[in-house]
Amino acid sequence: MSRKASLSGFHEWLPGERIVEHHVLDTLRRTFELHGFSSIETRAVETLGQLLRKGEIDKEVYAVSRLQGEADPNDPNRLALHFDLTVPFARYVVENAGHLSFPFRRYQIQKVWRGERPQEGRAREFTQADIDVVGDGNLPFRYDVDVALVMAEALGALPIGDFTIRINNRKLAEGFYRGLGLEDTAGVLRNIDKLEKIGAAEVSRLLQSELGATEEQAAQALALASIRTEDTSFVEQVRALGVTHELLDEGLEELAAVVGELHRRAPGRAVADLSIARGLDYYTGTVYETVLTGHEQLGSICSGGRYDALAAKGNRTFPGVGLSIGVTRLMMRMFSQEMARASRSVPTAVYVALTHDDDWSAALDTAGALRSRGIPTEVAVSAEKFGKQIKYADKRGIPFVWFTRTDEDGTTVHEVKDIRSGEQSEADPQSWMPPEADLRPRVLEG
Amino acid sequence: MSRKASLSGFHEWLPGERIVEHHVLDTLRRTFELHGFSSIETRAVETLGQLLRKGEIDKEVYAVSRLQGEADPNDPNRLALHFDLTVPFARYVVENAGHLSFPFRRYQIQKVWRGERPQEGRAREFTQADIDVVGDGNLPFRYDVDVALVMAEALGALPIGDFTIRINNRKLAEGFYRGLGLEDTAGVLRNIDKLEKIGAAEVSRLLQSELGATEEQAAQALALASIRTEDTSFVEQVRALGVTHELLDEGLEELAAVVGELHRRAPGRAVADLSIARGLDYYTGTVYETVLTGHEQLGSICSGGRYDALAAKGNRTFPGVGLSIGVTRLMMRMFSQEMARASRSVPTAVYVALTHDDDWSAALDTAGALRSRGIPTEVAVSAEKFGKQIKYADKRGIPFVWFTRTDEDGTTVHEVKDIRSGEQSEADPQSWMPPEADLRPRVLEG
Repeated sequence: MSRKASLSGFHEWLPGERIVEHHVLDTLRRTFELHGFSSIETRAVETLGQLLRKGEIDKEVYAVSRLQGEADPNDPNRLALHFDLTVPFARYVVENAGHLSFPFRRYQIQKVWRGERPQEGRAREFTQADIDVVGDGNLPFRYDVDVALVMAEALGALPIGDFTIRINNRKLAEGFYRGLGLEDTAGVLRNIDKLEKIGAAEVSRLLQSELGATEEQAAQALALASIRTEDTSFVEQVRALGVTHELLDEGLEELAAVVGELHRRAPGRAVADLSIARGLDYYTGTVYETVLTGHEQLGSICSGGRYDALAAKGNRTFPGVGLSIGVTRLMMRMFSQEMARASRSVPTAVYVALTHDDDWSAALDTAGALRSRGIPTEVAVSAEKFGKQIKYADKRGIPFVWFTRTDEDGTTVHEVKDIRSGEQSEADPQSWMPPEADLRPRVLEG
Repeated sequence: MSRKASLSGFHEWLPGERIVEHHVLDTLRRTFELHGFSSIETRAVETLGQLLRKGEIDKEVYAVSRLQGEADPNDPNRLALHFDLTVPFARYVVENAGHLSFPFRRYQIQKVWRGERPQEGRAREFTQADIDVVGDGNLPFRYDVDVALVMAEALGALPIGDFTIRINNRKLAEGFYRGLGLEDTAGVLRNIDKLEKIGAAEVSRLLQSELGATEEQAAQALALASIRTEDTSFVEQVRALGVTHELLDEGLEELAAVVGELHRRAPGRAVADLSIARGLDYYTGTVYETVLTGHEQLGSICSGGRYDALAAKGNRTFPGVGLSIGVTRLMMRMFSQEMARASRSVPTAVYVALTHDDDWSAALDTAGALRSRGIPTEVAVSAEKFGKQIKYADKRGIPFVWFTRTDEDGTTVHEVKDIRSGEQSEADPQSWMPPEADLRPRVLEG
């Protein structure tokens, strides 16, 4: 990124960067729609009561109020900007349940806001791209496999290099801890979640001091968290630890189904990683997170999991499973590491030059003919020196300049110049096409 | 629209409605890019100081603050949601002037927010689609023609029926009033702007009582405002009023250039309408507004004009000309009047049914083959009765259901059923294509 945000945490792209972002968003949309996900958008604001249901992140919320209005800061009907797309989607499902067909497959690409303290340098406005499948009452487990396959395909189509989707299962972990005799499974998960940050010895100490685990129990919990396989061989490794529990069996079967199908269809894209806890989120089965190879310290760029009750309406529950891509986080890394750039900064493929000021209307005809075949075209507004008109195109990376002149016998001659090679040849505005690769700006990797 | 918004003024679409909106936004984007406009997005928030520069609409602004932060209500650095895309664009141009090439052609499609009082039932969150061309120091007049042609083409590609772009020119009006001897031209414009609401007699009275116009001067100003022509014949009609002024000549020439070119290229789409004032906006030349035929009481759906200084940085000014479509206002009308609907509520064209639960992985292969040719495909997750699987597709408007069975000799037979006609035939997942019209949901008019 070439520039500093004028407002800390709020990033804005230059036109060339925006072309790369558009490419990323178009690719995601195309993949999601190929898999039958419907687009929805929810309003930017929710009531504070909705947003703070989980009670975890009140410090990060941006409240919204009419400038002249009197707001009671504790009013649960007070409005605030959404900080993710899951809470608004859950509300949307409940409100529109009578108009939706379940299982409902939706994608949602929108900005979210977090009121981070400015000194932390974190993004306060960013784009997320979510997919979820939500059921009415029940949702077959196979959707846990489905959404992971869709995201593997979507991320694989982006100019971001290699990545690994790390998958675990809460039932597996909880069943294992219960089988071990550790009943505060949330407490164990919370500590296991710190593994990368504080190391195994410290986690073992905490499990013993905080949760009353024996040294042996702590060692077993850590042994589970150390298992990581690309295929379903993790099942054997877990079995070898000698712990048994009904919930563990269920978790093993589910995780094997997800990892097995991903290993088959997207080899190298996913691992069973039994250290993944996604501590604070209320998942009840499969959990996912994703790291970019070589950019692991960036943290997860795509996370999610299964909820037994994404939403509820009276005693009707809506289980769901889904994943969310942090698009802005990804874009910032792509630009700072020069992983991708646009081949030009404008959509324009052809710039129609003017020989005389009076040719403008005729030049509009030429441009109209080109556009009718999908060729993005701009027209000069004054007959400046050709060198200056070519410079206009060159500065923007427009590959072709179109010239029109009248021959001695009065016939109009059209010529098109590839300003990269300097090659110039006669062309008919009714039929000429640029090479496919020049039609629209491309995204170049690396 | 089938439903009431759960939060007054914040509209959310159902998946089928969102398909229509996506079609509208895609059409606009395509047209803008064909004309060489670059996409940008600006952050949702500006400082209050930026937003209230014009000092007109402080009551309609939504302030934004960290829930735990202490905000001084009068701090000009306090954040608020943008209420249009022009103010943020002006700031973006100034901040990034060193990175942009001028004239800079940009489009911007984003949500904006206005803190309207809830009882007014007005939209508080809505999408706008803007195009502007901005120059550095100067901007040739021909861009005033250019942006109007682009919008005529863009609106003409939408399923909204007929519309009229009404065009006027501030120089024409101001020159005329000056030529008449009325020096408070802003005051005259402000009163002329009330013409539709209060009628000619009352405007005449106000011009006389408030601005000290003679009855004759008021009559002349009203005569000017009554002129409306599809071609450039308005020039003669103005001349016939016998008023002369240098600025009037300039305005006549400019308006004739815009209306003449539109009449030639988009006949019936535009009129010179000398009553258009766009009172509160700081335009300095061409002004535009647009009404939908048969929906005139909806007000303008696409407005804009020329600014001598869209933005300024020290003594460097950036003149601009552009137009803004009120997309949400348009969508609300399209749905309430049933002007357009989607042919189905999901992107899916094919639903792959399961004969046995164990066929799922094979069904994923079939779906993968179809998707590789761009066919949006979903796969059943369990082998329910075929009737139930067909119902899944039927409820969503998915046109095709795919069946796979194993013949007595062990060969796999694929069949695809058009559930509208009931027609079923053998098909190869490696080559079968649906009719082009069924590939993606279409937008049906009327």
